[in-house]
Amino acid sequence: MPSKDPATYTQEAVETDQPNKKLHWKQRAAIKREQQYAQIPPEWRLDPLPSPLPRSTLDYINDCPLLTPLEHSITSTTSATRLLSQIKSRELSSLQVATAFCKRAAIAQQLSRCCTEMFFGKAMKRAEELDRYLEETGELCGPLHGLPVSLKDGTDIEGEDTTLGWVGLAGRPAEKDCLLAECLRKQGAVLYCKTNIPQSLMMSDSYNHLFKQSVNSLNRNLISGGSSGGEGALIGCHGSIVGVGTDIGGSIRIPANLQGLYGLSPTVGRFPWHPSVIRDNIVNGVAGPLSCTIDTQEVFWESLLAAEPWNFEPTSYSIPWRSHLAAKPSRKLKIGYYVDDGMVKVQPPIERAVHEVVEKLKSAGHEVVQWDISSHREGQRLWLKAVLADGGRRFRKLCEQSDEPLVEGMLVGTEDDRLDVDEANQVSNDRLAYQKSYMRRWMDAGVDALIMPVQPWVGFPPKIWVQSSQNVSYTSHWNLVDFAALAVPVTTASLGDVGSEAWKHHQPRDVSDDFNWKQYDPELVQGMPVGVQIVGGRFGEERCLAVAKVVEEALRQ
Amino acid sequence: MPSKDPATYTQEAVETDQPNKKLHWKQRAAIKREQQYAQIPPEWRLDPLPSPLPRSTLDYINDCPLLTPLEHSITSTTSATRLLSQIKSRELSSLQVATAFCKRAAIAQQLSRCCTEMFFGKAMKRAEELDRYLEETGELCGPLHGLPVSLKDGTDIEGEDTTLGWVGLAGRPAEKDCLLAECLRKQGAVLYCKTNIPQSLMMSDSYNHLFKQSVNSLNRNLISGGSSGGEGALIGCHGSIVGVGTDIGGSIRIPANLQGLYGLSPTVGRFPWHPSVIRDNIVNGVAGPLSCTIDTQEVFWESLLAAEPWNFEPTSYSIPWRSHLAAKPSRKLKIGYYVDDGMVKVQPPIERAVHEVVEKLKSAGHEVVQWDISSHREGQRLWLKAVLADGGRRFRKLCEQSDEPLVEGMLVGTEDDRLDVDEANQVSNDRLAYQKSYMRRWMDAGVDALIMPVQPWVGFPPKIWVQSSQNVSYTSHWNLVDFAALAVPVTTASLGDVGSEAWKHHQPRDVSDDFNWKQYDPELVQGMPVGVQIVGGRFGEERCLAVAKVVEEALRQ
Repeated sequence: MPSKDPATYTQEAVETDQPNKKLHWKQRAAIKREQQYAQIPPEWRLDPLPSPLPRSTLDYINDCPLLTPLEHSITSTTSATRLLSQIKSRELSSLQVATAFCKRAAIAQQLSRCCTEMFFGKAMKRAEELDRYLEETGELCGPLHGLPVSLKDGTDIEGEDTTLGWVGLAGRPAEKDCLLAECLRKQGAVLYCKTNIPQSLMMSDSYNHLFKQSVNSLNRNLISGGSSGGEGALIGCHGSIVGVGTDIGGSIRIPANLQGLYGLSPTVGRFPWHPSVIRDNIVNGVAGPLSCTIDTQEVFWESLLAAEPWNFEPTSYSIPWRSHLAAKPSRKLKIGYYVDDGMVKVQPPIERAVHEVVEKLKSAGHEVVQWDISSHREGQRLWLKAVLADGGRRFRKLCEQSDEPLVEGMLVGTEDDRLDVDEANQVSNDRLAYQKSYMRRWMDAGVDALIMPVQPWVGFPPKIWVQSSQNVSYTSHWNLVDFAALAVPVTTASLGDVGSEAWKHHQPRDVSDDFNWKQYDPELVQGMPVGVQIVGGRFGEERCLAVAKVVEEALRQ
Repeated sequence: MPSKDPATYTQEAVETDQPNKKLHWKQRAAIKREQQYAQIPPEWRLDPLPSPLPRSTLDYINDCPLLTPLEHSITSTTSATRLLSQIKSRELSSLQVATAFCKRAAIAQQLSRCCTEMFFGKAMKRAEELDRYLEETGELCGPLHGLPVSLKDGTDIEGEDTTLGWVGLAGRPAEKDCLLAECLRKQGAVLYCKTNIPQSLMMSDSYNHLFKQSVNSLNRNLISGGSSGGEGALIGCHGSIVGVGTDIGGSIRIPANLQGLYGLSPTVGRFPWHPSVIRDNIVNGVAGPLSCTIDTQEVFWESLLAAEPWNFEPTSYSIPWRSHLAAKPSRKLKIGYYVDDGMVKVQPPIERAVHEVVEKLKSAGHEVVQWDISSHREGQRLWLKAVLADGGRRFRKLCEQSDEPLVEGMLVGTEDDRLDVDEANQVSNDRLAYQKSYMRRWMDAGVDALIMPVQPWVGFPPKIWVQSSQNVSYTSHWNLVDFAALAVPVTTASLGDVGSEAWKHHQPRDVSDDFNWKQYDPELVQGMPVGVQIVGGRFGEERCLAVAKVVEEALRQ
């Protein structure tokens, strides 16, 4: 039988007696956090914790004496290709690598609450097995032999909880690995931790009652993003070299962007995931990797798809990684771009980032054209209808089982948003028509890719996002049309980003736009990463990376 | 805007005033048939029709003086590769080829009612354009330059009706080509006719009130199958070299098998189609080609997918034709097989066909193992629940708009079959679990392919199938698990196929089995084609053809 998926799991949990059911949800959460803390070996604990907690988890760990020089060296590697080749040549053992990342993740967790489950002992045991295998056979176990990989909490890993941040789901370890975990292990990867998420997954701030607030690894006064915020925070401080997030409206790209990472949200079916288990889904979620480098993205994608997940998962398609499409093209490209999608005006550093990329591309001889966004508001309307279609019932049920309150302000919908069967079918058909029309426009335009902002803000303090009535239209549009989209780091925000006259005298278009405009504070976000989004079209995962290489090169000029 | 799909079309038709609405449905159908007859140029009419009508349309046309010797020569070609190379070398013009097939289809229509729409004038005009293009540029317009292709009625072609056999949908020509038609034209194909289907598509006998009964092209006393029965009948008498059918439970494979053809039902997303427009669908239909030869299948698939339909259609995946996987393997294969799926026992010629293939494969050194079918009854239950989920409402609505009666005995469901949202979601999840489990078993077994019957009967007279309470479990199982499956001609039924002792003393298992057993009549089906089904796994389209080549070779020994 296949691994249980979180959706089924959720449903069952609602119907089944829970351990600790009679305790107050706060007590249950506290127990879980105690268990979580116990997963960190005593010798890796920061005791006492630094006070005040360091602003930058990354900087703190870079100087942290708990890590040996070798461990510092291993975890400062951001190229998975390099790490894999060091393991292959036996310059490093899998155990050394696993230990280094486990330790660094443990420290990161204590400072930024980026993890949900940590199973370092199992990881190191697995690394030892891999070392033994290599020693005995002279062969690698697979193309990811010895590479530590972190996974977002929603991924079932045998023996570990998949709570998705719900108190009522704690204490029910998964019986089996999900296909993603199975494929990764088969390819030689070492799984060692799961990462933090928001309650419901439907916000850009990774906060829940069970594992609390995951803060940005570069600045603890700011959020790590969401819903793959824990992944972003962990990789952002090099507690992981590559991790997997999920994305239905920006949940990979936003945390990647907030921590200066690459995060690739693919077309449905490209990455082993179970997006369509709940048949109600009109727009499906996808999974994809976050990493510090393009190189790591490539080796991870290629190695994972070499496990041919489509032979095991009915929602995965038989498309291997096509390296030739990810190679940096030698010809000049045609790129569409936009700075403003007409809904929420982006903050000044983001506008500057897009313009910098556009100018550099033009200087490098590429054709860059303004992209028409006039349909995007309709796209946003459809996306919202789709993701709110159940009116938040599933989440309210999850709350009810432990009397845990729902975090207000998330994108979970109310009874007013609930669609009946005919309405849902109508939205589904409208979405399909929108997709077809957009795909046609893309082909007619003959663009290689589009470039635009990831999200319209640079950084928010914790628990601000939920007050924002915030849309995620810059990212969610690509889930709606099912195009591959990549967050790419470009620059950092500076005090000089005070904005144009147009920004200063901007007349807010609605509540979201007003909030975004008013929230901008150059001092608050100074030095934070600012990137752009590269959209590569349907099944354009490789193209995203190819164009990212062109952008990287252009920015270096 | 994208081409309108039949589902939407249907819905609109229900809501819109119809031309001729006040006439009795029989009158409306008669008017449509008159219009249809008028599509045949007078000089191609059989006037008077031969009396009695010839038993074999194929034999009759083979001797028919309406076709010139060149036209006989062109239409006797069953290899599309050969025909395409003759056009490329200008040994033949596109116009000569189009004229030959149009004429032959026109004759076939008069004898077997295989067509719904014929637009020969447009086809010949297009062929002339292609000839001019080749003459002027020295280039082919595309890889299918000049190849006539027939399409099942459900395919929208600009300016032609898409009635799906419903009286109420006649007289509403499609405004645009569907993507399949568009891709075919882009690749140089010449579209010239659409082919007959059953009312509702949900039976193996292509009969409807609008276009009447499509009979078998080899024996007019028998049915052509369904739902792509018109395609089968047309290609069966060489009125087309390749045509496209659709399949949700056997609708490509059964008519292919009944006319001794190859018919490939692919995994969802492999062939440009719009299977999931009605979100209620739990199991989606697919489209795929029927042809006399494997060679034609290959060139058709490769050429069509070279149009990259996945750039235009959200339900199509970026998987080009992989010729290397379709090549005849030099290694020995591991093949699973079964003769009896435990539901309906197959008639003697079919049992013989499977055994012949198995023995020949063994003689050729391949490993052939019995396949466990113990889960198939559960599979059939799920498939039935899925396809009957709307309780037949859509079809009853289509009847109501012209007061046309529903053909009794089709697989369309009653109110008792109707599922509510939760039930439908449950069936969908159960199906997904079944698929996953079956895919895992397939991988664990390490088989290259499976071989089994296509359908348990050799031939029925018209209008018998609907009395049969017939299951289609030998074919529908592969739609349920979404595996590619190919009908392959093997032998013909003979008077000597009287059956084993087990057959003679068979104790019927249920009504379907009893019917199938009692209906068998060696004299009735003498000489009719009998084939097997090759199942190539998920996305195993190429593998089906590769294994078919091995089977063909083994049978020649």
